[in-house]
Amino acid sequence: EPTSTPAGEAHDLVSRYREVRAWTERLAAPLSPEDQTVQSMPDVSPTKWHRAHVTWFFETFVLAENEPGFSAFQEQYWFLFNSYYEAIGPRYSRPMRGVISRPGAHDVGRYRSNVDDRMSDLLDRVDEGTLAKIAATVELGFHHEQQHQELLLMDIKHVLSLNPLRPVYAGSPAAATPATPLSWLDFDGGLVEIGHEGSADRGGSFCFDNELPRHQQWLASYRLADRLVTNGEWMEFIADGGYRRAELWLSDGWGRVNDEGWCAPFYWSQIDGVWFEHTLHGTWPVDPTLPVCHVSHYEADAYATWAGKRLPTEAEWEHAAALQGPQEATSPPRGSDVSTETWHPRAAGPADGTLRQLFGDCWEWTSSAYLPYPGFRPAPGAIGEYNGKFMSGQMVLRGGCALTPPGHARASYRNFFPAGARWPVTGVRLADDGGR
Amino acid sequence: EPTSTPAGEAHDLVSRYREVRAWTERLAAPLSPEDQTVQSMPDVSPTKWHRAHVTWFFETFVLAENEPGFSAFQEQYWFLFNSYYEAIGPRYSRPMRGVISRPGAHDVGRYRSNVDDRMSDLLDRVDEGTLAKIAATVELGFHHEQQHQELLLMDIKHVLSLNPLRPVYAGSPAAATPATPLSWLDFDGGLVEIGHEGSADRGGSFCFDNELPRHQQWLASYRLADRLVTNGEWMEFIADGGYRRAELWLSDGWGRVNDEGWCAPFYWSQIDGVWFEHTLHGTWPVDPTLPVCHVSHYEADAYATWAGKRLPTEAEWEHAAALQGPQEATSPPRGSDVSTETWHPRAAGPADGTLRQLFGDCWEWTSSAYLPYPGFRPAPGAIGEYNGKFMSGQMVLRGGCALTPPGHARASYRNFFPAGARWPVTGVRLADDGGR
Amino acid sequence: EPTSTPAGEAHDLVSRYREVRAWTERLAAPLSPEDQTVQSMPDVSPTKWHRAHVTWFFETFVLAENEPGFSAFQEQYWFLFNSYYEAIGPRYSRPMRGVISRPGAHDVGRYRSNVDDRMSDLLDRVDEGTLAKIAATVELGFHHEQQHQELLLMDIKHVLSLNPLRPVYAGSPAAATPATPLSWLDFDGGLVEIGHEGSADRGGSFCFDNELPRHQQWLASYRLADRLVTNGEWMEFIADGGYRRAELWLSDGWGRVNDEGWCAPFYWSQIDGVWFEHTLHGTWPVDPTLPVCHVSHYEADAYATWAGKRLPTEAEWEHAAALQGPQEATSPPRGSDVSTETWHPRAAGPADGTLRQLFGDCWEWTSSAYLPYPGFRPAPGAIGEYNGKFMSGQMVLRGGCALTPPGHARASYRNFFPAGARWPVTGVRLADDGGR
Amino acid sequence: EPTSTPAGEAHDLVSRYREVRAWTERLAAPLSPEDQTVQSMPDVSPTKWHRAHVTWFFETFVLAENEPGFSAFQEQYWFLFNSYYEAIGPRYSRPMRGVISRPGAHDVGRYRSNVDDRMSDLLDRVDEGTLAKIAATVELGFHHEQQHQELLLMDIKHVLSLNPLRPVYAGSPAAATPATPLSWLDFDGGLVEIGHEGSADRGGSFCFDNELPRHQQWLASYRLADRLVTNGEWMEFIADGGYRRAELWLSDGWGRVNDEGWCAPFYWSQIDGVWFEHTLHGTWPVDPTLPVCHVSHYEADAYATWAGKRLPTEAEWEHAAALQGPQEATSPPRGSDVSTETWHPRAAGPADGTLRQLFGDCWEWTSSAYLPYPGFRPAPGAIGEYNGKFMSGQMVLRGGCALTPPGHARASYRNFFPAGARWPVTGVRLADDGGR
Ligand SMILES: [Fe+3]
Ligand SMILES: [Fe+3]
Ligand SMILES: [Fe+3]
Ligand SMILES: [Fe+3]
Repeated sequence: EPTSTPAGEAHDLVSRYREVRAWTERLAAPLSPEDQTVQSMPDVSPTKWHRAHVTWFFETFVLAENEPGFSAFQEQYWFLFNSYYEAIGPRYSRPMRGVISRPGAHDVGRYRSNVDDRMSDLLDRVDEGTLAKIAATVELGFHHEQQHQELLLMDIKHVLSLNPLRPVYAGSPAAATPATPLSWLDFDGGLVEIGHEGSADRGGSFCFDNELPRHQQWLASYRLADRLVTNGEWMEFIADGGYRRAELWLSDGWGRVNDEGWCAPFYWSQIDGVWFEHTLHGTWPVDPTLPVCHVSHYEADAYATWAGKRLPTEAEWEHAAALQGPQEATSPPRGSDVSTETWHPRAAGPADGTLRQLFGDCWEWTSSAYLPYPGFRPAPGAIGEYNGKFMSGQMVLRGGCALTPPGHARASYRNFFPAGARWPVTGVRLADDGGR
Repeated sequence: EPTSTPAGEAHDLVSRYREVRAWTERLAAPLSPEDQTVQSMPDVSPTKWHRAHVTWFFETFVLAENEPGFSAFQEQYWFLFNSYYEAIGPRYSRPMRGVISRPGAHDVGRYRSNVDDRMSDLLDRVDEGTLAKIAATVELGFHHEQQHQELLLMDIKHVLSLNPLRPVYAGSPAAATPATPLSWLDFDGGLVEIGHEGSADRGGSFCFDNELPRHQQWLASYRLADRLVTNGEWMEFIADGGYRRAELWLSDGWGRVNDEGWCAPFYWSQIDGVWFEHTLHGTWPVDPTLPVCHVSHYEADAYATWAGKRLPTEAEWEHAAALQGPQEATSPPRGSDVSTETWHPRAAGPADGTLRQLFGDCWEWTSSAYLPYPGFRPAPGAIGEYNGKFMSGQMVLRGGCALTPPGHARASYRNFFPAGARWPVTGVRLADDGGR
Repeated sequence: EPTSTPAGEAHDLVSRYREVRAWTERLAAPLSPEDQTVQSMPDVSPTKWHRAHVTWFFETFVLAENEPGFSAFQEQYWFLFNSYYEAIGPRYSRPMRGVISRPGAHDVGRYRSNVDDRMSDLLDRVDEGTLAKIAATVELGFHHEQQHQELLLMDIKHVLSLNPLRPVYAGSPAAATPATPLSWLDFDGGLVEIGHEGSADRGGSFCFDNELPRHQQWLASYRLADRLVTNGEWMEFIADGGYRRAELWLSDGWGRVNDEGWCAPFYWSQIDGVWFEHTLHGTWPVDPTLPVCHVSHYEADAYATWAGKRLPTEAEWEHAAALQGPQEATSPPRGSDVSTETWHPRAAGPADGTLRQLFGDCWEWTSSAYLPYPGFRPAPGAIGEYNGKFMSGQMVLRGGCALTPPGHARASYRNFFPAGARWPVTGVRLADDGGR
Repeated sequence: EPTSTPAGEAHDLVSRYREVRAWTERLAAPLSPEDQTVQSMPDVSPTKWHRAHVTWFFETFVLAENEPGFSAFQEQYWFLFNSYYEAIGPRYSRPMRGVISRPGAHDVGRYRSNVDDRMSDLLDRVDEGTLAKIAATVELGFHHEQQHQELLLMDIKHVLSLNPLRPVYAGSPAAATPATPLSWLDFDGGLVEIGHEGSADRGGSFCFDNELPRHQQWLASYRLADRLVTNGEWMEFIADGGYRRAELWLSDGWGRVNDEGWCAPFYWSQIDGVWFEHTLHGTWPVDPTLPVCHVSHYEADAYATWAGKRLPTEAEWEHAAALQGPQEATSPPRGSDVSTETWHPRAAGPADGTLRQLFGDCWEWTSSAYLPYPGFRPAPGAIGEYNGKFMSGQMVLRGGCALTPPGHARASYRNFFPAGARWPVTGVRLADDGGR
C-alpha cells in the first residue's frame, strides 16, 4: 500500500497536491485577465486573488517554516494575499482587492509555479519527522484550496451577473427532467452523536476543526423533505405574496426585503413577464423543476413559515445524512472538463426513499447559528484563526453544491454564511416536527 | 382567596395594573420634559415615547377590541407609538422618535390617565367571558411595561452620558464592600429540561412565548463561577492588552474594537490616568469590587478566552439557576423611592456555596444564539410579533439587572441583544467544562 | 442728540440690546421645552441652543475681555454653545446638539438673564475708551442675534414639519389677495459699484465684513422680474414635467431630484390630489398667488431654464435694489405680537413700476457663488471666522424673508446657503439679459 | 492650401482624426489588460472605459446620424460607454465601471478599429453639405478625446498609487535643475475682455462652449507670481503647521483635513522621515525644486492665506496669459515616445520677466467658481450637456499640465474640478492685489 512508508506517503501527498492545484487552474482557464481582476462587492474576491491566496497559504504555513533557506517569492505578496490571519501581520484591505491590477493573472501563474516547484522539492526530500509535522498542514492546504475553488466560481458568477452583456463562464445546462413530488422521511430522535469521527492526524479522514469534537445531542423525533424546494414551488410562494407579507419574515429579513427590494431569488430577473436566471452558463428562463438557489437564510425561513414547516437544525440534518450511508459524498461526479460541466444545481431524480440532493446541488440552510461545538478548541497559532473566530453572527449550511469540488463534501461538514448572504449557491430543504 | 371569583380576579388585575403603571411614572418623575424628549441613538427611545408606547399597547391590544364604543384617544398616536407591530399598520420611523416634540411629556401624562381610566372601567364591568379572553393580554401588558421600565432607565442613562455637564438621574451609589474571591460550582450534566413550566393561561405563572415549550436538552457536566467578573478583574484584562490582542477576539468583535476604538467598558473614561464610570448617580471612579457592566458579548467572549474559560450556554445557566431554588427572583428588592434607590449593580456578598448575583445586578451574556426552542410556535395575530420575529442575529442573556423591576426576573427568562450591544446593563459570569 | 456723548451712546446700546434680546424670547415663547430641545437634522439647531448660543456670543466676545473679574456663568457652556469658532477652542459636535437635554429651556433663560444683567452693568459703567473698543462687537452681537432669530424660526419650522400631528407654531396666514401679473424692469449696465458704503465703526451704518469692500463691477444691461415667482407658476412648471426633465437641471441638482425624490417644493405634500403646504401656521392648501418658497438653488435654476430666463447675479440684484431707494428695508413691518404675526411670504401687491417683494418675503437665489469681494479681508481674531471661512461651495441669496427681523435687511446684505438647501425661506426672482 | 476645398478639408479631418486616435492607443500601450480594468474610486474610470467611451462619442454623435445604413457595433455599448448624456438614454452606473470585465482591453481595440474604419469611410465620401454639418462635431470629438487622454493618465496614476508593489506606468523623471526665485509681475486692471475669440464654426480656432461668449470684466490692478509654488516652499508650509492651523483654512477644507487626515499633498508619503512622491515614473523622494502638485483648492487657498497672498481669479489669469503671447500653448512639447516622456511637472526655468510654467506643468487653481459667462448658451441637443450642466459646485483651473496632450491648452480654456479634488495634476500660482 503506497502510503504505508514515509516516502510513499510523501509521494501520495505530492500527487494529491498536483491534482488539487491543477483543478484551480482549470477553473480559471476560461476567464480573461480582466475577468480575473474584478471585485464586484466586498464579499467577492478576484479570481487571480483566489489563485494567489491559496498559494500564499502553502508558502506561509508550509514552506516558510520548513523549506531550507526559505525566502519569499515576493515579500509584498504576504501583505497582498493574506486573507484574515492577524497573527501573520497586516494585510491589504479586503474591499480593495479589486484595485490591485498587478501582479496580473500571468504573474500569479508564475507565483503558483514557483511555489509548486518548491513544494515538490520539499516533499520529495522530506524526512520522516518533518513529514509527520507538515502532513496535516499540507492536507489542510488541499481542503483550503478546494474551498476557494468553490468560492472562485461563486464570486465570478457574481462578477459576470453585473455585466449587461450577459456573459457566460463555461459549461452547459443539464438536460431537462420531469418534476418529481416531494416526500417526507421520518427520523426518530433520542440521544444522538454528531461531529466528525476524528481528524486526519488521529488516523481518521480529514475534517476541519469546527467539526469537532464529536458529541452527544438530544433530538426529538423529526421529519425531513426528501428533496430540495424547487423553482416552481418558489414561484407559488412569490405568487402568494411571499415577499410582501411581513408576518412570514424574521424582522431582520423583512428589513432587507424592504431596504434592498427583494422580490425573487438573487439572480432572477423578470423580462417581459418571464423569470430569467443568471447562471454560469448564461441567462436562461427559470426551470421550475430545478432546485431554487441563491436565496438567503431569511428567504428560506420565510418560505418554510409560509409552507407551515421549518428549517432543519444542523444536528437533525447531520444525523439523517449520516444514517443514509457513507459520510463521504459521491454525488458530485465532476468531470475533468470545465467547459462541458454543468455548473448549476440539477433536478432531483425519482424518489427512492432516501434524502435526495444531499451533497451536490445547493448548500442547505439550517436553523442553527454557527457556534462552537461543546468542548471545541481552536488549533494553536495562526491556523487556529481558520474557523473559530467566525463563530458569531452566521448560520450553518450543510451538504454541498454544484460548485463544490469532488471529494470535498461530507455529512459532518459545517459551512456558514451570514443570514442575508445570497451570492453563495444556497437552497432549502424543509423539516418538520415528528409525530404530527 | 380574592382571585377565585371573576370579580375578585378582575379586582386583582386592576390593582396590579395600577401598581405597574404607577411605577413607570415614578421612574420618569426625575426627568425634565427636555430629558424625556431626547433620542441619543437609534437603539434608544425617548422617555415620553416609552410612557406613551406602553399605554398604546393597552389601548391597541385590550381596549380596541373590548371597550364598548371604542374610539382612539388620538388617532395619530397609533402611528407614533407603535413600536414594530407590522400587523397594526405603518408606524413612525424608529430612528426619528427624537424629533417628535409633541405630544409633550405632560400630554403623554394625559394619554396615560385617559387609558388608565378606560382600563379601570373595562375591568370593573367586565363579564366572565371577556375577562377570560383578555386576562392574558392584560397580564402581558404588565410584563411589557416592566420591560420598558428597564429600557427607559437604560436609555436615559445613555442620553445623559453624552452630556458634558455629567448629569445625574437620581438615587445614590451603594456603600463600598470588600472584594470576595471567585469560587467554582460544579454541575452534573445529563438529560435536563429547560423552558418555563407553563404559561399563565394554563394555570402556571406568567412567561413570554419564547420561554416555551419546556423541552429536553443533553448537557455535559460543567462548572459556573459563583459570582460575576468584577471591575478589578477587568482592569487586569485591560492591563494585559485585552483590547489590543486580536487572538482573544471573535472576528466581528475585533472589527468593532478597531472601528469604534473600544478600549474599556462602554461608560468608562479615563481622566488624568484614573478610570471613571458614568452611572445614573453621576460619574464616579470605577470601584474594583463591583461587577463590570456595559460590556458587549464580544468583550465578554474575549475576556473569557483571556481567562482560559468560556461563557455558559443558556441551558447550563437555566439548569443551574433552577436547581438553586425558586424560579421567581427575590433579589432585586427595589424600594418605592426612586430617589434613594441604587440604580447600579452591587458587589457580591460573601461566598455561600450558591450562585451569587443571579438576578439583580447584570444581565449575563451566554454563548447561545437567540433561536426558537424546539417546537416553538408564536401566538397568532399581532401579539405573535412580540418575540418570534427577533430570533435572528442576537445572543441570549440570562438573569436580570439592577434596573429590572421587582418580580420581573425568573430562571427561564430569555433576554436578547445583538452581540455588539453595550448600552444595556450587561455583565459576565464565567463557565468551564466539568471534570477538568 | 442722545448718542453724541459716551454715556448717551452707551445708553443707546443698552436699550437696543434689550430690544433685540427681548425679541428672541418672544419668538421662543410659543415653544414648549420639548419643542426647544429637538434637532431634526444636522443643519437645524434646537431653539434653546439658539437662545444660549447668542448669549454665549456676548459672554465670549464682550464680557470675557472687558468685564472686571470675569468668570464664566458655567464653564461647560463655552464648549456646548460655541458654534464654529476654532479659535475659542473645542466645541460640542454640531449634529449632536439635539441630545443635550440639559441645560433645559428654563436654565437657558437663567443664563440669558445673567448675561443680560452683566451686559447692562458693563455698559452702564463703561468708560469712553472701553466703549470705543467694544461698541462694534456689541453691535455685531445684535445682528448676530437677529440672524439667529431668523434661523430659530426656519429651524423650528423644520422640526414641526416632521410631526404627523401637523403642529402649529403661532400666528395666522395673511388674507387672500388677487394674483398680479409679472412685469419686467430694465436696467442699464456699465461700470457700477456694489458693496456696503462703509462699516459702523467708520461712521456708516452696520454691515457684515462680507459686504466689503465696496468695489466696481462691469455689468451688461439686464432685466429683472418685478415680483417673485408664484406657487401658481410653479404648479405649471410641475405640470409641464419640470421635476422629470433632465435637460432643465444642473447635473448636481438632477442627482438630488433622483436621490431624494424631489417632485415639488420642500414643504409641499399632496393629499387626495391637492397640494398642501406646511407653514408655521399649520398645513394649508397651497395658495397660487403667494410666492413659491423653500426651493433649492437647483430648483430655482431649473425653473428659470424652463421659463427661458435665468437667475440674477448678486451684482445685478444689488445694483437694482440700491437704485430703488433706501438701502434699509422697511418692508417687513413685524409687529410686536408673535401670536398674530404672519410668518409666511405674502402675495405681491399691485405692480407699481418698482421691484416688489424685495426684502420681506423670500430670500432670492442669485446665480453668484459666495466668494470674497476683491480686496476682502476678514477681521483679525476669532471674529474673523464669522463669514470668511464659509466662502466656498455656497450660493448668494439677496433680500430678506418673512422671518427676517425688522431692520435686519439691506440691499448689500449677502446671505448664503448650499445650492441644495431647501429648509430656509427661499424663492425665485427671474432675470434676463437686456436688449433682447 | 489643402483645407480650402471640401475634399481637402475632409482629408485634413481624417489625418487629424488618425493622429488623435493613435495617441490614445499609445498612451494605453504600457498598461496590461488588468491595469485597464480597474476603477480605484468613483471619480476614476478604467483605461479601457476611456478608450471605449471616446469611441462611443464618435459613433453616437457623428456616425449614428450620418452613416448610411448605420447600425451600432454593439448595442449594449451605448449603455456601457455613455458617460453622462441624459438625452442619449440610460447608462451604466458610474461607480460600477470597474466591475465590467467584458468587453476586455482587446475587444475595446476591435471596437476602436471598427469605428475608425467607419469614420474614415464617412469622411472619405462625405459631400460638402454633410461635411459642413459634421465638421464641428468631429472637431469636438478630437478635443473630447484629448481631454480623456489626460484623464486616462490621471486615473491610472491613482490606480497604481494604491498598489503596494509601487508600480511604474512609463517614462522617466526629468533631470534635476536648480531652484529659481519667485518674482512678481504687475498687471494693470481696467475694463478687459476675456473668453475665446470665437468658435471654430465661425472661422476661429476651436473652443468649448464654456469659453464663450467673450465679454467684458472690470479688474482692479493685480500681481501674479511668475512661477508655481514649489515642493520646497510647500514643505515650509507643512513645517509651519500648515495642516494643523484652522485659521488658515476655509471651513469645508478644514473639515476635509480632519475627516481624511490630510497632512501633505495627495501622493506624498513619509518613509523613515523622508517625503516620497508617487509619480507615473514610480515612487521618488520629493524634489524641492519641482512645482507642488496634487493639492486641492482648499490646500491651495490655505497655502495662499499662509503666504499672505491669494489665488488669482480666472479673469486675472486669462488676461495676463493672453497678454503674454499666442493663446495656443507651445510649452508641452510632448514627444511621440510614451516610454521616454516625462509625465510630471518640471522645474521652472530661469526667470525671464514672463509668467513661467503657464501651460505644461500643473493646472492652476483660481479663486473663481465655475459659472456660466454672461450670455452663455449651451448648444442644443445632447451635446449641450457637455459643459453647461456642470456649472455648479466646482472651481475653475487654468493653464494645463504635464499630462495635457500637445495642442490642447490655451489661455481661454476653463478646466474645473470640485474644491476637494486631489487626484488631478493641480498646482498653485499666487496672486496679490496691485499697488500694495
Ligand atoms: Fe482562505
Ligand atoms: Fe414594546
Ligand atoms: Fe452664530
Ligand atoms: Fe467624455
